[in-house]
Amino acid sequence: MTVFSKIIQFQTEGEIDIIDLTSEFSKIVSDSDIKKGILSANVIGSTGALTTIEYESRVLDDFREILHKLIPKGAGYKHDKIDSNAHSHLRASIIGPSISISIQNGIMQLGTWQQPVFVCLDVRPRSRKVAVNVIGE
Amino acid sequence: MTVFSKIIQFQTEGEIDIIDLTSEFSKIVSDSDIKKGILSANVIGSTGALTTIEYESRVLDDFREILHKLIPKGAGYKHDKIDSNAHSHLRASIIGPSISISIQNGIMQLGTWQQPVFVCLDVRPRSRKVAVNVIGE
Amino acid sequence: MTVFSKIIQFQTEGEIDIIDLTSEFSKIVSDSDIKKGILSANVIGSTGALTTIEYESRVLDDFREILHKLIPKGAGYKHDKIDSNAHSHLRASIIGPSISISIQNGIMQLGTWQQPVFVCLDVRPRSRKVAVNVIGE
Repeated sequence: MTVFSKIIQFQTEGEIDIIDLTSEFSKIVSDSDIKKGILSANVIGSTGALTTIEYESRVLDDFREILHKLIPKGAGYKHDKIDSNAHSHLRASIIGPSISISIQNGIMQLGTWQQPVFVCLDVRPRSRKVAVNVIGE
Repeated sequence: MTVFSKIIQFQTEGEIDIIDLTSEFSKIVSDSDIKKGILSANVIGSTGALTTIEYESRVLDDFREILHKLIPKGAGYKHDKIDSNAHSHLRASIIGPSISISIQNGIMQLGTWQQPVFVCLDVRPRSRKVAVNVIGE
Repeated sequence: MTVFSKIIQFQTEGEIDIIDLTSEFSKIVSDSDIKKGILSANVIGSTGALTTIEYESRVLDDFREILHKLIPKGAGYKHDKIDSNAHSHLRASIIGPSISISIQNGIMQLGTWQQPVFVCLDVRPRSRKVAVNVIGE
C-alpha cells in the first residue's frame, strides 16, 4: 500500500468555466503506479466544486443555466454586501468540494461519457488548485 | 493495510428508481475482512448518483418530487436536441457521483435510518454499475 | 500506511445550525501522525450533511436562506404525515453525507476561507455524530 499526492494548478476563464480533469487525473494514476485503490480529490478554495458530467458542450451549457436558475446571482444575499460572490459560495457548497474514483486494473472506473470536472463558480478568472491523492497498491 | 475492490452490477427499472445498496456494501465490507478503514464508492456513468437517505417509501417519493420540481424534465435544455436526458445529467452532477463511509469495528458507521443508495436518473431501465473499494486494516 | 479512526460527537442547536469542524479535523490529523494521505468523513444519520463553505456569518445566513427557498419546509411532503422533517432529509441527500480532504505535509489542503462544516438539517436540537478516518503514511 502506498499513497501518492499531488496539487494540480490551472487557470480558469471566469464564471462557470468547467475544466475537464480526465487527463490530469489519468496521468496522476499512471505516475502513482497504483493499480487498485482510489483517487480522492478536493478543491482548495470555497468557490469551486468537483463532480462528474458528460463533457459535451450542450449539457455543460444546460448545467450553467440550471445553476443560474436555482441559485441566481445577486438575489439580495447578505454576503454580497462585503463581496460580490455569495451565489458562488452557495453553488459550491451544494455541489460539493470532493469526489473519489475507484481505480481497478490501473484504470479509473468511470463511464465513457463521464468526466471528472472542476466547476469554477467564482465571478472572475482565477488560478485554482485541486489536491489529489491516490491510495492503494 | 489492504485494499479490496469490486464492481456491483444491477438492473434499474427507469427514471428515479432508488436502489438500497446497504446489503451489497455490507457484504463487500465483510468479504474484505477490513475492520477499520473506509468504503469508497462511485457511479460508473453520468446519469446516476450516490447519496444516503432514509429508505422509507414516502421520503423516497418526496425525493423524486423535489428533483422533478428543481430540475424539470424537458425544460428547453440544449442537450435534449441530441438526447432526451439533459435533466438526468444535471440531477446526477448536483447530487454527486461518489460517497465514502467509515468502517469501525468491522461495521459501516451509518445511522439506523440512513441507507446508501444509487439514484437512477436516466429516462429508461438500464444495467448500472457502481465501483466500490474498501481500504484499511 | 496506517488508518486512524474516530467518532466526533457534538450538540446542535436546531434547524440549519452549521458547525465548523476545522479544529476537530485538525486535531484528528495531528493525533493520527499521518503526513500524507486523506481525511474522509461521513455524517451518521440522514438529516445532516457535510460540505465546505466560507465560515462567515453572512454567507452562512445566505446558505440557510437558499435551502429554505429551494426545498421549503412543509410543502406537502408525504413523509411529513409520519414525521415533520421531510425537507431535512431532502436537503441532506442533495448536499451529501461525506467529504474527503487531502493531507499533504501534515496539513489539510483547504483554502484560507474554506471550512469543513456539519450542516444540521433536522428540526430540533440533537446530539450528532460524524465518523472520521485518516488514511496514509
